[in-house]
Amino acid sequence: MSSNNTVPRVTRAALTREVGIKTELTSDYPVKQVADLEPGECIIKIECTGVCHSDLHFMAGEWAIKPRLPSAGGHEGVGRILAIGAHTLNSPVNIGDRVGIKYVIDSCMHCEMCRRGHEQNCPSRKIAGAHVDGTFAEYTVAFVNHLIPIPDGFSSAEAAPILCAGVTVYNALTKLDTPPGSWIVIPGAGGGLGHLGIQYAVVKGLRVLAIDSGEGKRELCLSLGAEKYIDFAESKDIIADVKATCGELGAHAALITTASNTAYVQAGWYLRPHGTVLCVVICETGHQIYWVHDRVCSPSLRGCWRTLTVRFLHSQLAGKYDATSQSGRLARLIGVVLEDMSNGKLVGRVVLRY
Amino acid sequence: MSSNNTVPRVTRAALTREVGIKTELTSDYPVKQVADLEPGECIIKIECTGVCHSDLHFMAGEWAIKPRLPSAGGHEGVGRILAIGAHTLNSPVNIGDRVGIKYVIDSCMHCEMCRRGHEQNCPSRKIAGAHVDGTFAEYTVAFVNHLIPIPDGFSSAEAAPILCAGVTVYNALTKLDTPPGSWIVIPGAGGGLGHLGIQYAVVKGLRVLAIDSGEGKRELCLSLGAEKYIDFAESKDIIADVKATCGELGAHAALITTASNTAYVQAGWYLRPHGTVLCVVICETGHQIYWVHDRVCSPSLRGCWRTLTVRFLHSQLAGKYDATSQSGRLARLIGVVLEDMSNGKLVGRVVLRY
Amino acid sequence: MSSNNTVPRVTRAALTREVGIKTELTSDYPVKQVADLEPGECIIKIECTGVCHSDLHFMAGEWAIKPRLPSAGGHEGVGRILAIGAHTLNSPVNIGDRVGIKYVIDSCMHCEMCRRGHEQNCPSRKIAGAHVDGTFAEYTVAFVNHLIPIPDGFSSAEAAPILCAGVTVYNALTKLDTPPGSWIVIPGAGGGLGHLGIQYAVVKGLRVLAIDSGEGKRELCLSLGAEKYIDFAESKDIIADVKATCGELGAHAALITTASNTAYVQAGWYLRPHGTVLCVVICETGHQIYWVHDRVCSPSLRGCWRTLTVRFLHSQLAGKYDATSQSGRLARLIGVVLEDMSNGKLVGRVVLRY
Amino acid sequence: MSSNNTVPRVTRAALTREVGIKTELTSDYPVKQVADLEPGECIIKIECTGVCHSDLHFMAGEWAIKPRLPSAGGHEGVGRILAIGAHTLNSPVNIGDRVGIKYVIDSCMHCEMCRRGHEQNCPSRKIAGAHVDGTFAEYTVAFVNHLIPIPDGFSSAEAAPILCAGVTVYNALTKLDTPPGSWIVIPGAGGGLGHLGIQYAVVKGLRVLAIDSGEGKRELCLSLGAEKYIDFAESKDIIADVKATCGELGAHAALITTASNTAYVQAGWYLRPHGTVLCVVICETGHQIYWVHDRVCSPSLRGCWRTLTVRFLHSQLAGKYDATSQSGRLARLIGVVLEDMSNGKLVGRVVLRY
Repeated sequence: MSSNNTVPRVTRAALTREVGIKTELTSDYPVKQVADLEPGECIIKIECTGVCHSDLHFMAGEWAIKPRLPSAGGHEGVGRILAIGAHTLNSPVNIGDRVGIKYVIDSCMHCEMCRRGHEQNCPSRKIAGAHVDGTFAEYTVAFVNHLIPIPDGFSSAEAAPILCAGVTVYNALTKLDTPPGSWIVIPGAGGGLGHLGIQYAVVKGLRVLAIDSGEGKRELCLSLGAEKYIDFAESKDIIADVKATCGELGAHAALITTASNTAYVQAGWYLRPHGTVLCVVICETGHQIYWVHDRVCSPSLRGCWRTLTVRFLHSQLAGKYDATSQSGRLARLIGVVLEDMSNGKLVGRVVLRY
Repeated sequence: MSSNNTVPRVTRAALTREVGIKTELTSDYPVKQVADLEPGECIIKIECTGVCHSDLHFMAGEWAIKPRLPSAGGHEGVGRILAIGAHTLNSPVNIGDRVGIKYVIDSCMHCEMCRRGHEQNCPSRKIAGAHVDGTFAEYTVAFVNHLIPIPDGFSSAEAAPILCAGVTVYNALTKLDTPPGSWIVIPGAGGGLGHLGIQYAVVKGLRVLAIDSGEGKRELCLSLGAEKYIDFAESKDIIADVKATCGELGAHAALITTASNTAYVQAGWYLRPHGTVLCVVICETGHQIYWVHDRVCSPSLRGCWRTLTVRFLHSQLAGKYDATSQSGRLARLIGVVLEDMSNGKLVGRVVLRY
Repeated sequence: MSSNNTVPRVTRAALTREVGIKTELTSDYPVKQVADLEPGECIIKIECTGVCHSDLHFMAGEWAIKPRLPSAGGHEGVGRILAIGAHTLNSPVNIGDRVGIKYVIDSCMHCEMCRRGHEQNCPSRKIAGAHVDGTFAEYTVAFVNHLIPIPDGFSSAEAAPILCAGVTVYNALTKLDTPPGSWIVIPGAGGGLGHLGIQYAVVKGLRVLAIDSGEGKRELCLSLGAEKYIDFAESKDIIADVKATCGELGAHAALITTASNTAYVQAGWYLRPHGTVLCVVICETGHQIYWVHDRVCSPSLRGCWRTLTVRFLHSQLAGKYDATSQSGRLARLIGVVLEDMSNGKLVGRVVLRY
Repeated sequence: MSSNNTVPRVTRAALTREVGIKTELTSDYPVKQVADLEPGECIIKIECTGVCHSDLHFMAGEWAIKPRLPSAGGHEGVGRILAIGAHTLNSPVNIGDRVGIKYVIDSCMHCEMCRRGHEQNCPSRKIAGAHVDGTFAEYTVAFVNHLIPIPDGFSSAEAAPILCAGVTVYNALTKLDTPPGSWIVIPGAGGGLGHLGIQYAVVKGLRVLAIDSGEGKRELCLSLGAEKYIDFAESKDIIADVKATCGELGAHAALITTASNTAYVQAGWYLRPHGTVLCVVICETGHQIYWVHDRVCSPSLRGCWRTLTVRFLHSQLAGKYDATSQSGRLARLIGVVLEDMSNGKLVGRVVLRY
């Protein structure tokens, strides 16, 4: 099956040619042809892609699975289906549909983890940009079972960051049953996940105390609805500063959107008894966190759920957010974005278009 | 223990002299004197009181417990503590404090239900206005363990309806774990509980479909954040109308704030599978509801929880609401308010002051 | 794809030829041939099948969907896969596997309900024996995505009743978070679901009060671990009798395994506040139940979950149960079993073999 | 108020005279006299007392709050009420009652933590044996609001260990919603908490893999229902050994009943995704634990809940357990028990009588 839009032989791409945070721009990366597609596979023409901190960790060789060389990273992209492999049955999407690619691009659909809706834990899952090429190539292969239909009313640039950053914090906050009017602390609030976390927390009626560093991030956080901002580079005692705002017992919840062990340790001390920490980002030193005194720790890794992603995108809610702080051409910006991200200077989320 | 404010011998009150919805205004109803107070009892000078549909049912003799004659009803009032009984130990409130009286005015504090925070189910609980006199008398007896401190920043008129109507719907919505962006239907949305339900649901990020009748209620509901209003007197097919708004699968949740069996029956049909009905108001025909097809029914009766009431009032949240639609002097309005409520004409909540 | 075992042209079956509870035995019911199988379909040679009360309701024309005439009912059967349709991809089962057919024999795998693991609520689900032929035909068509692998260590006769009756009560009791040592009441305890409910409740550390009628059922219930049996035909006051056993506040939970409106009404009165009713079997009078006073109602319909069924069968737990009270040849017993079931005389569960 | 049993001037006690794990036996420790009791206080004549690892940590000066010198430790004891302070109101217990003293011997009953049933987190809670004298004195002061009535059918020696060790693991396991048939790993299974954890887990239908060291503990664990025992001193790879028993995905839950950081770290690796760790005992190195990959961490510290303790003791369940492995006279054994406990040699729980 194939649409009128011909699938080209080669594509533009930002390729990983060696382990590290640099990509090489090319315009002749080979594209799998329609006749070669397995059932269940399809070809997507990408319109735009987000850039995620996980791309950085993976490209730098920090994960158990190492980059194939060359390969195209990227796992939050939006595009249109050009072709679907022959003998594909019961596909939930059709040629011509505008769809999103997310972190988990395929899974077995039958193991215990898949059946329970935890596709990210499927032993044979495929991660976009790691096990297979991802959204840093303009024409790329995806799998119909895991594509997310994008509803009208979103631009592709608005939808892209929701597919990983957005649904990750949404998933975490959905699990939180702390009632409206409670305080939530968000370390890393000015980053790609954090700035969406502020917005979702506000929608749930929570009061937000943002923690990050710098004036750009302060301004972004307060403009999105945080009531209070603590600059960790200036604070002399984060624990005391949080309690001064949230009350002597401490905050009701924390959403950790920074890869910092310190953030986990501090949450152990500024949360009130029976408070909840949402472990969104795992910290750098061996996935280690502090835990004391009757606080609940709810891990919420990775924005890759079929169910949640569809539900979220199709609620009117998603359209209300300002998920992106910067955008531009991939060919021009991908290098500087990866560089800034690596230095902790990136404010909000970036979406790049071809 | 007694303050400078002398406790008078007699008080103004709106008394129930016979079974029915009429009260008799008096100015010489006897007040318990300080020397006669048991430990744990105190005298409150009421500033204002809400009027609840439960008052009506009780006065009309529709409950298992019948009105003492004469007696003073009323169970959501705010006032100040004038005196506390001798030998009262470990009181959480002090003479001079501004406090709220709620539906459950006392309970044993030690039975299984009290220990679990379900004081409304304590076999020896006392209901204000029923087992003992309530807030329709200006000077009245209350019990220190169940009084709710009113924080600064609320007027007494703002706080009163929160003590029963407000915390009842807050409790119900707190139990609901349906994520932001989901649809909730609120039958009875224009009434005392319903108009607060709209506001809390909006704060949780839910989309509200209000059901009630008449233009005054339509206007109130839409102004408070409901996206859609269905007038049940005009709709030819409530089920179809709800699905036209919320999608073919149906709504995610319903908050029943009307004493109508029909509302429960309809919710059984317009909720999607695994949707949730919050049973706030019990219906007229024998507490009977319909139930089908994997929907969860979560009973949430009565706004009487010590824990939740304190938490809610002390969150900044509560102050944001517009809990009252009408107010005025008790002596002038109590008769017409009970009459209108009995006819279903009362819009929002009324607070009366002495 | 086809195994050595040839798929015959015709099969033995107990057919529904007209609306009612009678079946007609035949040996020449046509079998779909391998070349005609759609991708995802397969042919099963059934070894044995349970008989469920739902079969009876459906055959009698009491459901919205009416019997096709002629057709073969039955939805809890165990057999082996003889052939799988060409172009079937990513099948979780293989030719030769011993597998179970359950109530939901197929669903779309992609809608909101399927993604959330609620395949029974998929708008395009197929029910075995209703939308398509079921296990009352010896050779029958099934769908690979919903087949349940049967682990070694179970006989097929042991496994069959678990596929519907077993997993239905297991699902309901899995949702129940009432702690060990609490009392659960099981109306219908001597029937196909109830006698399994007793065993699972005992495994969870609950104390069981069984309600049913007759000495055969009494004996079965007590032998399976119920501490107390109430014969509803002899009791003068079920509510009082339950409270005499479970305490004045009432029982902590009820598992309704009988299609009786009265059972739901009674549970409303003998449960303690905040007790839980597990609504397994829907009652005869319009799916209507009573509900009062802060009790939680958790619907738990139908044993059709892919996830739960696999998990349950593969835990060592399942093998400990005595799921079947009677067994024999289908050709000899199906008529009398349906008759006894219709009269409420059937004790435990029946499994029939070809 | 006082009974016929005269309250003596002095009592036998095992006193802490200096920081360390040694006690000094005396027979002339002063007893508070009835006339000096505050309202809410009472005098208990202790019959027997458990010895808990927390006693050891506290006596050794390892906690923030240091031992008063001299003082009597002990926080799981059973005895009878000899006298209650004048003006005590609404006492849930009476003179002559057999009652239990637990870890939290008093709390304010009104703060957020107390109202929510988390008395262990009340800022003004009193811990038996720390803030006030405990059960290592034969005659001691307790507080009526927190005493636990002991039902008939328990000997005092059976009831004592339930008041801290028993209810602590019961509380943790009550929170666990992993279904029957799942695997739970219990490090420290042969100790005072662990050996009760095995028994409760078995009652919930869980399969138990016990981890501890030595033949005495192996024998105890297997006799109580554990299916498998791993001796951590002999295992070369705990993670692999657990997975060999529980399946490649790992165990469903872990109940950490040992004060070992290693136990937390290992649980992070042998639990399956979305598995649950119950953090009962906090580890030695700064309350630090490992956390990875979508596992839920549910802290469950201290057996001090009024609600749970009463519920548990009054279920028939509690009486089924074998909570004590050794017993004897306090005067003879307290020294050696504290010594063995300090060396990790104590098997099961010890109860000492006067």
